[in-house]
Amino acid sequence: MFAVNYVGDRTMTLEERAPAELRAGEVRIAVAYVGICGTDLHVFHGDLDGRVRTPATIGHEMSGTIAEVGAGVDGWSVGEPVTVMPLVWDGSCPACRAGNEHICQHLDFIGIDSPGALQQYWNVPASTLVRLPSEVSLRDAALVEPVAVAVHDVRRSELAPGDKAVVIGAGPIGVLIATVAAAFGADVVIAEIDAARRATAAELGLATLDPSAVDQTAWVEEWTSGAGADVVFEVSGAAAAVRAATDLVKVRGTLVVVAIHSQPRPLDLHRVFWRELRILGARVYQRRDFERAAELVADGTIPAERLVTGVVPLAEVQEAFGVLETGRAMKLLVELNAS
Amino acid sequence: MFAVNYVGDRTMTLEERAPAELRAGEVRIAVAYVGICGTDLHVFHGDLDGRVRTPATIGHEMSGTIAEVGAGVDGWSVGEPVTVMPLVWDGSCPACRAGNEHICQHLDFIGIDSPGALQQYWNVPASTLVRLPSEVSLRDAALVEPVAVAVHDVRRSELAPGDKAVVIGAGPIGVLIATVAAAFGADVVIAEIDAARRATAAELGLATLDPSAVDQTAWVEEWTSGAGADVVFEVSGAAAAVRAATDLVKVRGTLVVVAIHSQPRPLDLHRVFWRELRILGARVYQRRDFERAAELVADGTIPAERLVTGVVPLAEVQEAFGVLETGRAMKLLVELNAS
Repeated sequence: MFAVNYVGDRTMTLEERAPAELRAGEVRIAVAYVGICGTDLHVFHGDLDGRVRTPATIGHEMSGTIAEVGAGVDGWSVGEPVTVMPLVWDGSCPACRAGNEHICQHLDFIGIDSPGALQQYWNVPASTLVRLPSEVSLRDAALVEPVAVAVHDVRRSELAPGDKAVVIGAGPIGVLIATVAAAFGADVVIAEIDAARRATAAELGLATLDPSAVDQTAWVEEWTSGAGADVVFEVSGAAAAVRAATDLVKVRGTLVVVAIHSQPRPLDLHRVFWRELRILGARVYQRRDFERAAELVADGTIPAERLVTGVVPLAEVQEAFGVLETGRAMKLLVELNAS
Repeated sequence: MFAVNYVGDRTMTLEERAPAELRAGEVRIAVAYVGICGTDLHVFHGDLDGRVRTPATIGHEMSGTIAEVGAGVDGWSVGEPVTVMPLVWDGSCPACRAGNEHICQHLDFIGIDSPGALQQYWNVPASTLVRLPSEVSLRDAALVEPVAVAVHDVRRSELAPGDKAVVIGAGPIGVLIATVAAAFGADVVIAEIDAARRATAAELGLATLDPSAVDQTAWVEEWTSGAGADVVFEVSGAAAAVRAATDLVKVRGTLVVVAIHSQPRPLDLHRVFWRELRILGARVYQRRDFERAAELVADGTIPAERLVTGVVPLAEVQEAFGVLETGRAMKLLVELNAS
């Protein structure tokens, strides 16, 4: 089979190798599609070189069909379409014991900490499998993982129908959060400084604003009749966005930190105090988020077809990373086993 | 009667004047004691010169007895011992309409935005009165307001019995939060770099640590068996404390921002994301906090006698501010009408 390896130095190489041995409790998946995400780009850029062991087969947004079922695995059959929730927790740390297994203090994020989906046959613990509704195409199903991120972020925010939400950043996760929040009954606007990303969001039917052209604080105040937004999602990762975000939130409103901020960011703690704001970190997902995400892709709430900018063959992974880092593609899928 | 005025330039002056006219809906209080707090010190230092109108009679931690009841006021009698919850809200802003009157978007904080308690006879809206349990001395009752702050902060944190809490900063509010949290059943430690403040907290029976001498992150990790603290209260106002605070909190734990941070502070948003932390602003109090605070002072949970460093006469207010700004006094009371 073929697999893709990140070998350091912004380089992805194609390798022909035998599939890994299937162990008890595992399932072998014939991988159909793998989406490349922002975290994969971080790996590509070397930001996670202290964490990934090269050569590293990365990738964790995927769809496929079961090719083989390992010993001791019940309830799954060859040929079933699946996706994977790529988390393995230790079950014994304080976070796990408190019911927060998804952010286990020793979490194995498959595709970063252990081999990922950019290989034609991928072995995963059966516990990570997520069943796909029969009506979903494998191509669309590769979006279930990022949609699960968005569902988790929206659930964590405790957004209620009729609430007004601002999403800062119109990258793939920002657009998905906005789409999920709207599906949950919220009024949503995406703040994005990049015109092309704004245009893409607008084409998807989302309201947008350009914080470099309008006074977004005044805009949100007007939009919310002087209250401020119920929920703001910080998905940009930009210091300036963090600095401005607290001004957008209503008294006792919520700011959800979704983006990865590699450095401490100046935050207006006086505003946090003054308005009794709530700031919530939100990371990955729980199983219910995956199951809800699969439903949202299946029922068309997520416009999967329109979110996928293109599909590339395995041999073009290196080029795909190059396209993605320009920020001009919303989502590229890699096709592993042509269907 | 005599009143104290802040006249700018770190100066408090004594003025003899007639009591203000008592309007309908108001009650005149013969003020017994007024505590001087950190906010009053901010006024004294000129930090709030843009907000207070000089000459300003400040003061909002107090006790007294009702001297006269205005027209239209029911349920209160001359001679009753009272304290005041010094908040007047507009009742019509979005925050008020959502039930958050205590942080009304146009809040009148009596003692800053309108005349305060540093006068022998003080007129307040009857709606602000809080009844004192009969067994509380007026001297101890002057602490009810800061205790209400602490009760509010602890309630806001959703601290549960058996939780482990870190209070950063052993000033008056930090000590009260620690005392209230312990009374609510938590295990508490106060982190404080000042040896004298640490000693005062220790004399009150509180566990302390010196973050300049021990690795507080390692200490808290050991103390919590690797989990991190359930709740951390940031009461120091120091940038370094904010920077370090996120490392002390468990997965899905809570950091409460109590202190006033006049500038944006670098915050480790990656840790907020990674551990799905919750950061909550907490400001002033609600009526139930005041009522609980009065009970805690009355039943001796709050060691009021030991918290009051001294009582000064009205003529020595200027000197009292000087002592307080050295940080060597926990709480000074001004006696307005000798009993």
